[in-house]
Amino acid sequence: MTRPNLSLSGERLWASLMEMAKIGGTPKGGNNRQTLTGADADGRALLTHWCAEIGLSPVIDRVGNMTFRREGTDPSLPPVAFGSHLDTQPTGGRFDGVLGVLAGFEIMRALHEAGVRTKAPLLLVNWTNEEGARFSPPMMGSGVAMGLFTEAEILAKTDPDGAVFGTELARIGYAGTADPAKLQDIAAYFELHIEQGKLLEDAGEEIGVVTGAVAQNWLEVTVAGEDAHGGSPMAGRRDALAAASEIVVALEMIARSAGSDARATVGQLTVTPSSRNVVPSRVWFSVDSRHGDPAALARMESDLRAVAARVAARRGVAVEVAPFWYAPVTPFDPTLVGRVRAAAQRRGYRHRDMPTGIGHDAVYVARRVPTAMIFCPCHGGISHNEAESITPEWAEAGMHVLADAVLETAGAEQ
Amino acid sequence: MTRPNLSLSGERLWASLMEMAKIGGTPKGGNNRQTLTGADADGRALLTHWCAEIGLSPVIDRVGNMTFRREGTDPSLPPVAFGSHLDTQPTGGRFDGVLGVLAGFEIMRALHEAGVRTKAPLLLVNWTNEEGARFSPPMMGSGVAMGLFTEAEILAKTDPDGAVFGTELARIGYAGTADPAKLQDIAAYFELHIEQGKLLEDAGEEIGVVTGAVAQNWLEVTVAGEDAHGGSPMAGRRDALAAASEIVVALEMIARSAGSDARATVGQLTVTPSSRNVVPSRVWFSVDSRHGDPAALARMESDLRAVAARVAARRGVAVEVAPFWYAPVTPFDPTLVGRVRAAAQRRGYRHRDMPTGIGHDAVYVARRVPTAMIFCPCHGGISHNEAESITPEWAEAGMHVLADAVLETAGAEQ
Repeated sequence: MTRPNLSLSGERLWASLMEMAKIGGTPKGGNNRQTLTGADADGRALLTHWCAEIGLSPVIDRVGNMTFRREGTDPSLPPVAFGSHLDTQPTGGRFDGVLGVLAGFEIMRALHEAGVRTKAPLLLVNWTNEEGARFSPPMMGSGVAMGLFTEAEILAKTDPDGAVFGTELARIGYAGTADPAKLQDIAAYFELHIEQGKLLEDAGEEIGVVTGAVAQNWLEVTVAGEDAHGGSPMAGRRDALAAASEIVVALEMIARSAGSDARATVGQLTVTPSSRNVVPSRVWFSVDSRHGDPAALARMESDLRAVAARVAARRGVAVEVAPFWYAPVTPFDPTLVGRVRAAAQRRGYRHRDMPTGIGHDAVYVARRVPTAMIFCPCHGGISHNEAESITPEWAEAGMHVLADAVLETAGAEQ
Repeated sequence: MTRPNLSLSGERLWASLMEMAKIGGTPKGGNNRQTLTGADADGRALLTHWCAEIGLSPVIDRVGNMTFRREGTDPSLPPVAFGSHLDTQPTGGRFDGVLGVLAGFEIMRALHEAGVRTKAPLLLVNWTNEEGARFSPPMMGSGVAMGLFTEAEILAKTDPDGAVFGTELARIGYAGTADPAKLQDIAAYFELHIEQGKLLEDAGEEIGVVTGAVAQNWLEVTVAGEDAHGGSPMAGRRDALAAASEIVVALEMIARSAGSDARATVGQLTVTPSSRNVVPSRVWFSVDSRHGDPAALARMESDLRAVAARVAARRGVAVEVAPFWYAPVTPFDPTLVGRVRAAAQRRGYRHRDMPTGIGHDAVYVARRVPTAMIFCPCHGGISHNEAESITPEWAEAGMHVLADAVLETAGAEQ
């Protein structure tokens, strides 16, 4: 392939990121641009404004997904899509999602300026409500588009204040008429995203070649002991919290021993009866475990069950480990992943293959469409946090790899 | 001392216990006779009825404490008091508190039947709201009597439904006129109570000679880590809950290594932000630690701080250990304790000296009045629980020791 000589500008990308970050900017330097708020509308309007300057106008579908289509030279070809999301967590950062959308926009702008046409049409996508912070679950827009959720169920979702998704979507002016399922007809989907981990930064690498999404196994653990007075002797206690604490520590060790793809998180834990001077009789906690290898993930669960059984026997408590939710491994398209890897290689970026342990719109899209993702590092792995930060160089590297992979897939003609 | 030949009946004591247990009896065989409820009024009325049969009438003070006075032969002597409480936890047992009151009543009845006079007057006490379940804090009646709380503050306390203590006390007909502080003028106080632990049962002993109350050191621990996505790599996490769990397990070990008098309980623990797929950034938990030896209790705190510092350094989290409440050791009166011990010895009961790790009315009374306590075993150490149980033989043994110690202190004449 002949690679067109584009004026892709890292500086201009950075300026766009900083401009977008003013919308819903927080005092600590982060962003609160939650989905279907006025700030979300303002962010969408700014993107629309920028795209209008290069002759692209949005198509909005019935769940608010925005697409900007740049025609190709071969009208028979389905479009090559790329993008991410502009919505943020309530105390989110400036790059999670936004980088993928604005790097995509910068590619569109550079193509426009260079007068380069691709064979296949290009489609820049801003998915609705990737974060799931205000309306749960996350990845609603891509989930509806790929047929994982129905429009009706999503439009009826309510936020903690009782506001209805469909009503809010109309209120901010983004209840469109396009069929979200049309997005299943794209030829390919690429998404550039910050890593939200620190493997790349710690290794001094600029690009993560994302090979797919890990499997997720979410469990619920209940420990039933016996309440006792805080003044009762230690001997003979059946302390549900001490037992649960042992299991939490052991679970972390299980994950640390199961390879760099393994994760285990106890994010919620409740204590009953919850009195300062009463030995807890019951503890419930959630387990979110993930692994790139389903067999290894299953071993993590059996290791957890073995620890639970040992703790139960030794402490005279009952431990129940129950399934809550399971998501299989989602491999990305090997050809597209290969293009990402080749682009990083060619440009001399230090890179590694890695799975994503985190859900992204790309993971839902991959269920129906050939997909690949590109990670760029983020400082300290900090994300979903106002302190989230990246360097302009990392952003630029990610953009270049995205551009190369997109253009190779769409076919570029000077 | 000549010991009078009393017809103290274990069978009759047991029958009284079972009769009282019908008031507020629960389907699982426990008792719900919370303070200042209709059931509390019924329990008080039954005790009043029984005492009336042996010529004793109640004096009610302004916080509802009930005393039944049996005159002695020497009007110049202050009374020797004994008793406990009739109120229970919402899902409490049939013996916690009740045993001390009804064993005291059985002693009064046996003295009446035998026509035995003591030198000093005797005073059977039923303290108001020992449990603190409905109105917090616990041990209100004894606390007011001994000047630890003011009447005004206690009368103004509200339950979770907003009911006011003073109003409820009047409603059930037990807002008396006597001055609670008059109870500071008693010569001595004895209280028989179930152990609420399982040291005695496990050792096959019938009597605990309670030497005093342990010191209590209540702390609050806050662990500050950093939130991260549940899909982020394990390396580099600063998981506040994993850190807290390590500390909870270590604290239990510290208590188990600090002698049989040591206790440590984490009864409350909260997780922030509490999301299934977010590594917790902050965990707060309570620590209730106790020891008969204040120096050992201080060492437990410094051991906890050392563990906290190690965990903090290794995991890159911040751990703060803050004081919350401290209660000093409360020794009981050596002479009275000696009489309890001697009585157990004389009657051939297997016994041991032990502190109480749990607050009792006797612990407050001991701040002003020479005091001693007698423990009898309870099955499995189970208490504050409908399954609480003791044997009639244990109840009888405790009653005999109580009677001997009371009569030796009051001076009995046949």
